[in-house]
Amino acid sequence: MSETLRPHRYTDAEIAAVYRVIAERRDMRHFVPTPVAPELLTKVLQAAHQAPSVGLMQPWRFIRIIDTTTRKNIHQLVDAERAKTAQAIGEFETTARMAEFLRLKVEGILDCGELLVAALCNDRERHIFGRRTLPEMDLASVSCAIQNMWLAARAEGLGMGWVSIFDPVALGQLLNMPSEAKPIAVLCLGHVNSFYKEPMLVETGWKTARPLADMVMENSWDSSK
Amino acid sequence: MSETLRPHRYTDAEIAAVYRVIAERRDMRHFVPTPVAPELLTKVLQAAHQAPSVGLMQPWRFIRIIDTTTRKNIHQLVDAERAKTAQAIGEFETTARMAEFLRLKVEGILDCGELLVAALCNDRERHIFGRRTLPEMDLASVSCAIQNMWLAARAEGLGMGWVSIFDPVALGQLLNMPSEAKPIAVLCLGHVNSFYKEPMLVETGWKTARPLADMVMENSWDSSK
Repeated sequence: MSETLRPHRYTDAEIAAVYRVIAERRDMRHFVPTPVAPELLTKVLQAAHQAPSVGLMQPWRFIRIIDTTTRKNIHQLVDAERAKTAQAIGEFETTARMAEFLRLKVEGILDCGELLVAALCNDRERHIFGRRTLPEMDLASVSCAIQNMWLAARAEGLGMGWVSIFDPVALGQLLNMPSEAKPIAVLCLGHVNSFYKEPMLVETGWKTARPLADMVMENSWDSSK
Repeated sequence: MSETLRPHRYTDAEIAAVYRVIAERRDMRHFVPTPVAPELLTKVLQAAHQAPSVGLMQPWRFIRIIDTTTRKNIHQLVDAERAKTAQAIGEFETTARMAEFLRLKVEGILDCGELLVAALCNDRERHIFGRRTLPEMDLASVSCAIQNMWLAARAEGLGMGWVSIFDPVALGQLLNMPSEAKPIAVLCLGHVNSFYKEPMLVETGWKTARPLADMVMENSWDSSK
């Protein structure tokens, strides 16, 4: 396509960097405990903060966990839910490898350089644009913020993991969250020895990713996909 | 920080490209009707498809709207909800400027080169990892996919808009979606004359963005923020 039609196109090198980071982002669980420099943390949080939000409600909140006891309590809370999940899965699959896999998903919480809890803050009365029929757009906005942060971290050479195995009510209580807030992610951020080449579930042989073609339809739903 | 500690760091130019695209992504509503090249559409959808998903469930689905009548029907459906939203807002704010603003939010649907509907497909029985207590992680994954697509499009010089003003049940019916699927976005994608310098709500003076510092807390919820 001619450049005239796309005057706002980035340079080839810039475009390649954007696709590279999208392809190389991984949900990390293995960290080295080196601290994350404060200015680096601010940069990746600033990337999160540039996410879109319906009605500019900016519903994302980040709680930085500095206190060691709080970090241990969060680990314990996640581990309790891990055990319940393993049990629920165990009802219809073999458990030993799965239990090991889930154990790995949790241990990053103790090792990562920075632990953050991401929450949505939902003062819905004050923000009505486009959320009358899709009130869950606040979660969508926080998710976009986390994806931005993930990409920025990867480019900076930092790994990030989004842990979603926890009881949100229990975590909210632990962190004194009010009723209009809900934790949606325990984010492990930090230096890593290496990035996984493939998503962990693929690397460990649990799952095979489906191709894009399975996800794209034309004009209406295609139930053959 | 020394490079030894961050051996996986991208080059300065690559990092700058990642931050640039995060900063310059805009929720676009103004398009020129030039078609989007098919290979370009595939590239940005492939970026979406590289999003994270809990348990590798890959819950995103994209319906490409090629049929003109279907596009008009979607526009009509969104416009109906726009009118209801304007009315709801009108109960406590002045309406004329707001009505005009909302009108702008809808018209891109008719002009953009490519119209897509993004949906989540929620066969929850088959995917149990980390979704026992946070079943809405499917929406989070689709949102990350859309954010990837948005960034890739911006780097390619294409604008994208996420329209969320619609009744999801009505849109699902229009596109013959089964009960386990839910539309969460009408995506307008296409060539643009220019990108907004600031989010539309800021440019038009409706809102002021809050700074990052308001969103970051330490160790527990800070109700002063």
